[in-house]
Order: sequence, then structure tokens, then C-alpha cells
Amino acid sequence: MAHDAPLSPLAPKTFPDMPAIDGVRFASGAAGIRYKGRTDVMLALLDKGAQVAGVFTKSKCPSAPVDWCRAKLKSGKARALLVNSGNANAFTGKIGADAVKLAAKIASRATGAKESEIFMASTGVIGEPLDATRFDGVLDTLVKDASGENWLDAARAIMTTDTFPKVATAEAEIGGVRVRISGMAKGAGMIAPDMATMLSFVFTDAPIAAPALQAMLSKSVQGSFNAITVDSDTSTSDTLLLFATGAAAARGAPKITAANDRRLTAFKAALDVVLTNLAHQVVRDGEGARKFVGIEVTGADNAKAAKRIALSIANSPLVKTAIAGEDANWGRIVMAVGKAGEKAERDRLAIWFGGIRVAYKGLRDPAYDEAKVSAAMKEQAIDIRVDLGLGKGAAKVWTCDLTKEYVAINGDYRS
Amino acid sequence: MAHDAPLSPLAPKTFPDMPAIDGVRFASGAAGIRYKGRTDVMLALLDKGAQVAGVFTKSKCPSAPVDWCRAKLKSGKARALLVNSGNANAFTGKIGADAVKLAAKIASRATGAKESEIFMASTGVIGEPLDATRFDGVLDTLVKDASGENWLDAARAIMTTDTFPKVATAEAEIGGVRVRISGMAKGAGMIAPDMATMLSFVFTDAPIAAPALQAMLSKSVQGSFNAITVDSDTSTSDTLLLFATGAAAARGAPKITAANDRRLTAFKAALDVVLTNLAHQVVRDGEGARKFVGIEVTGADNAKAAKRIALSIANSPLVKTAIAGEDANWGRIVMAVGKAGEKAERDRLAIWFGGIRVAYKGLRDPAYDEAKVSAAMKEQAIDIRVDLGLGKGAAKVWTCDLTKEYVAINGDYRS
Repeated sequence: MAHDAPLSPLAPKTFPDMPAIDGVRFASGAAGIRYKGRTDVMLALLDKGAQVAGVFTKSKCPSAPVDWCRAKLKSGKARALLVNSGNANAFTGKIGADAVKLAAKIASRATGAKESEIFMASTGVIGEPLDATRFDGVLDTLVKDASGENWLDAARAIMTTDTFPKVATAEAEIGGVRVRISGMAKGAGMIAPDMATMLSFVFTDAPIAAPALQAMLSKSVQGSFNAITVDSDTSTSDTLLLFATGAAAARGAPKITAANDRRLTAFKAALDVVLTNLAHQVVRDGEGARKFVGIEVTGADNAKAAKRIALSIANSPLVKTAIAGEDANWGRIVMAVGKAGEKAERDRLAIWFGGIRVAYKGLRDPAYDEAKVSAAMKEQAIDIRVDLGLGKGAAKVWTCDLTKEYVAINGDYRS
Repeated sequence: MAHDAPLSPLAPKTFPDMPAIDGVRFASGAAGIRYKGRTDVMLALLDKGAQVAGVFTKSKCPSAPVDWCRAKLKSGKARALLVNSGNANAFTGKIGADAVKLAAKIASRATGAKESEIFMASTGVIGEPLDATRFDGVLDTLVKDASGENWLDAARAIMTTDTFPKVATAEAEIGGVRVRISGMAKGAGMIAPDMATMLSFVFTDAPIAAPALQAMLSKSVQGSFNAITVDSDTSTSDTLLLFATGAAAARGAPKITAANDRRLTAFKAALDVVLTNLAHQVVRDGEGARKFVGIEVTGADNAKAAKRIALSIANSPLVKTAIAGEDANWGRIVMAVGKAGEKAERDRLAIWFGGIRVAYKGLRDPAYDEAKVSAAMKEQAIDIRVDLGLGKGAAKVWTCDLTKEYVAINGDYRS
């Protein structure tokens, strides 16, 4: 059973308007996979010609639907997306692969799409066989109900222990024609008795071919979903899919086939905005999170070193508990820099909390005002910056604090 | 100020007898570096001819005393060891290096040892200059007081937030002559406002030359101090020193110069026993620890892969909170195996908790008895085994659980 956690204090105050995107329709329903009294299946239907790109978990033990999506992605064509919550169909071996095949067959029958153009994702308990026949009872109705307007309901159906649905949208012009990018995500919350997953599905009406879509997605994910961490753990099922219906071509948008096409400049920026917004919402719904923490590393040897150092800070339990305690503990930042395994020189390090420099050239900064730093640490959003004074490598990542609520959510549910 | 945490429930019930080792004497005193009402300086005096080997933090921002020890280790000779708690002299830049030089000068004057044969370690707050003149007031008395019997007092003087002093001892024969190996350690506990350090000092009367000592220490540390983790964080100051006084030569022990000398077989085993015992005590005194967890990985591609996977499990907050909740959550073990970045195949994984197989060949083991597993999870010591079914690589590491007390100790102290 899912937790009934109170709304995260870091939740956005309002949801954005989510207008329909030409060429895609959504529906959600309750298949009774695990939960009672809530929806657990989401179906997205894509018009003919839709293109798709994807990024998946780096886990060496990926779930059955991840294996399926990776294989089907090669054609770049998509007609349907079927997602369930309640059961991740992960660590289920051959039975899990069979369940995915059966789900594709059922979805093909209900939607008319070829099995090879149906994408799938599952989130929830792992190690339990997924009964794919559950889809049989609901998909016909979902096909009938599907509408471009159902964004929030769709985002709710894919939630596990998320405390709020996550959606984001942005506009851009391609060749003078307005296109839209909208997405939904669910976060890395817990679902007893196993960890859950980051899922995100993003849709655009821009007419962009799959290879260009893939190149842009792989790049944009670096500064968004690959720059967040809640607890350093990686799900077996993380899935991010980007679908382009191409419907804007009917309004005169040019068909784009190469990611380096100059007409994509605004589109790329809008994609970054949507992915970053969704990624930040995942952090803001981190288990037990009370603080949203941005960590910027500058002056590193190179960008890769900067990111490793930033993630070392973001994943350090000692840093995260200090932030929970509203303590500008730069000693723990030094520790996390030191253990990252990248070049660092003690006598060149500088560290800021909330824009206030607290350490400089190997020593506590004698000028800093303790009261101002204490006030900054009481904010809901905390910015930490570390300058290594070595080169031009820079990176930014986001995380949340580590609280007693995190331990309670993840450790108490059986007691 | 240090926490006054209650004794760890995982503490050993009794201390071993710690007989004197010929050629080394200890003393401890209160220099008032940070703490009130307790000792904070430990001095060990070594007879002429003592040899030394060391292993240090892999942090790229090591403390000033670590830099000092690394440089002085080249000669392999040691006459004194000076350790203080309360201030780590880390991230103190040039001022820190100057403080170490001044401390060496003061210790040389008090002990008569050459500065280059004095080893040092500091643990406590970082980023604050260490006032080395504090040593001036106490070292003359310590030299006078030094005795071979003072093991527990010495182990207490190096504590920070440790809840018990850590000592261990073992005997071995070299060429038919009995020698002794005894050591002390302090753990990776917290000391407000910064993280502390793992320090360990081990002494033997065996007549072994520094290069052989170093080779044995570097090897033995792999299965002991380098196979434990409390919270994946690495101190700037971790220091392990092994001193050999050589006094057993007077009782007929042969002088050994090469680590591959067959007469060292029993000595190596005894060294492993002492280092592993001390390392386990550090885990047993982990902050907020309620469970002592052994994680064994077998069937990996190679030994290095096995250790990476074992540490990925041991450092996973989701695994550690599950253990705190007494939950045999093998789904989280799968997740941690998958994210380690080493070869793993879902359909070959098997997982045991407390010797009971709960997952096998890609599925929950249908035969396992839930009640027996639940009972095993209530024990204070929990053994987890993962077999990857791929090769012969094996490794074992130890950790503790992640509890609300950990977060309280590390996050609450300023509130």
C-alpha cells in the first residue's frame, strides 16, 4: 500500500494550464494492479507519424518494460504509451518479459497500434509478477475516453508515493510556427515494500525526426534529470520518453531531421525548461524533503570533474543532514569535495552558502556574518557554491535534505 | 562540544586485556584544545630502532598532519606519535602546515626524538587553526608518565564522539618466538560542527623492517578498514599507522625484511585479526547504529567488481533504512546491485538474509519462510549474501543501519 504522506512543503503552489497538444490524447483508469480506490493505468494515444526518443536507467538489472522500450526505440515510431503504477515488473525474469509481451498484445488489440509501436513503463513493487491481463478490462474504455485535455489525471495515474502530480509546459517557435512541449513526471518516492522509479513522458507537436529528437533529449537530460539526486539510489525502471506528433506541420512548421538545425534553437531551450522543471519537481517531492538545494561547482579542472564533485556533495549524508539542521557546515562540503576523487587544492577552495562566502583560500572567511548565513539557511531553497580555483569546469545539480522523515518513510513501514 | 551519546548497543561487552608491548609507552593528558573535563592528547614513545608504515585518507584535501606523515614515512623510522582530539587541523592551509611544524618542534624538545621521526594525527573540528602551543604545557608531563600499560587511557584520549574506546590484540609466532600486535582506533563519529575521522594506531614488538611492514599493512587494510562504511563519507584525516619496535629480537625473534618471508604467515593472520576487529568496532560505534551488517558478494566477474557491488549495497540509504526497519527488502538489494555499474544478470541473482535464500533466478524464492526471515532481521547482527552467478569474484564488507538517530546526531546539534 502506498503511503498517505502529507503534501510536500516544497510542492509548487499551483499547477500550470496544460493545453492539449495536437496529435496526442490521454486517458487513465483503475485496473486494480495493487492500489485500491485510485487510478493506476495511463494510456497515451499518438496519431500516425509520431516519432519517439528515450533515455533509461543505467542499472545493470533493468526492468522488463525498460528492455522492451530500448528494443522498440530503434524504429523511432510510436503510436501508444501504456504505463501502470503499483507493480514495476522488475526483477521478474522471463515471467516479466512475457508479461510485457502480453501487455503489448492487449494494447495492440485495444488501440489498433502495431505491438512494435507501443511503449511501456511500470512503477511500483519489484520482484512480483505483473498480471498483464488486468489491462484487458480497462483499455477499451480508455481508448474511448482519451482526450487531449486529461493531463493532470494522467499525471496522477502514474504516481506512487508522490505527494503531488508533476506537469510542466513551454512554447517555442520553429520556422515562425508556434509549437508546444508538455510533460509529466513521477518521482523517486517509496512504495512499500520496494523502491520506486523516476518516470517522465514529454510530448510535442513539433515535426522532428527521431534521430534529432534523440540527440536533443540525450543532451537536455544532462542538465536536468541527470543533475538531480534524492538519495543516490538508482531505480531499475527509470524511463524518460519524448514523443513528437508532428501535428504542427499542418500549421506550417518545417520538418526537421537534424539536431544541429539552427531552427531548433528556441525548441532546445524550451525542452531544457520543461525537463529541468520536471526534474526539480521530483526533487521537491523527495521523501521527507524540507529543503530544495542547488549545488553549483565552478573552477574545476573540467565539466566532468565539476559534476562529480557536485554530486559527491549532493549525495553526502553528512552534508544533507547538516542542511536539514540549517547548519552552514562548510567543513562537510570540504570533506565531500575531497572524497570525490577529482583534483582539488585545499588552499584554493572557496565556499558560499546563500551567496555568502564562508570559506576562502584554505580558511574560514574572516569577513562573513554568521547571522546572515544562519538566516539564509532557514530558507526553503538553499544555494551552495564551491569554487575550486583550478580551471573553467562548471556544473550544477539539485538535491534535497536528509531528514528523520526520510528514514521514517523508508524504514518504518513494516514496524 | 562533543555529543554525550549513550553507549552504542553494538558495543563489545568487555575490553580485552591489553598487556604492554616491549618498546612502546603511552601517556595521555588534557591540553584544553576544545573539550572540557577530558583528555585530548595522546603521546606514544617508541624505543630506538622502531619501524613504521602507514595508510591514509584518499581525500584530495587531506589534513596537515596527513601531509606531514606521508612525507616522514619515507625514512620508515619512528620515535614518537602525537595525537590530539578536538581539532583536526584540516582545511587550514599554510597556517595548518605551520602548526604541524611547531607541534613537531615542541614534541622533539620534550621527547628528544628527531622532528622527522615524530608522527602526528589530529581529529575534531576542521577549518579552525590548531594552537600547537597547547602541547607545550603537557608534553613534559606525558613523557614522564608514559607507561606500557596505559592502553585504554590512550584509546580514550583520541575519541571524539565515540561512545566507547576501541582496542584489540593478538599474538603470533615468528621463528618460534611469540610476538604481540595490539592496536587502538577511534571511529567515524561526529564532532560538532564538523565530521570526524577514523584513526588507528597499531603496535608490535616484532622486528620487521618498514618496507615489509608497509606491504603487509597495505594488504591487510583491504579486508578491514577499507571494507567498512558508515555513511559513505570520507574524512580529510583518516590515518592508520603500524609501528614495529623490534623488541622481540632480544628474545630471539628473527629480523624480517621482506613481506613474502614465510615466517610471517602467522603474523599476517594476527594482523588481519587485529585490524578487522578494530574496523568492526568502528562500525559498531557508527552514529545511531542499531544493527551490525555483513554484506558478502560472491559469483561476481572478479574481486574488484564484487567489492564495488558490496559497497554499493552497504552505502545505499534505501538498503540501510530497510535494515533499520528490520525488513528483508531484497528489492532494494537488486537496485543497489544494478546501480553499482558492474556486470550483473537479473536472471542469475540470488539473495540471502541471515542465511535464508529469499530470491533466486530472477524471482522471489517460493520456498522461503517469511517468519524465519523476519526473526533473522530482528537480530543485532545481520548477514546479507548476494550471489551473481557469473564468476568467482568475492568480497565482504561491513556497515551499520541508517536510523533516525543518525539524522538527529548529524542534523540537530545546532537547533
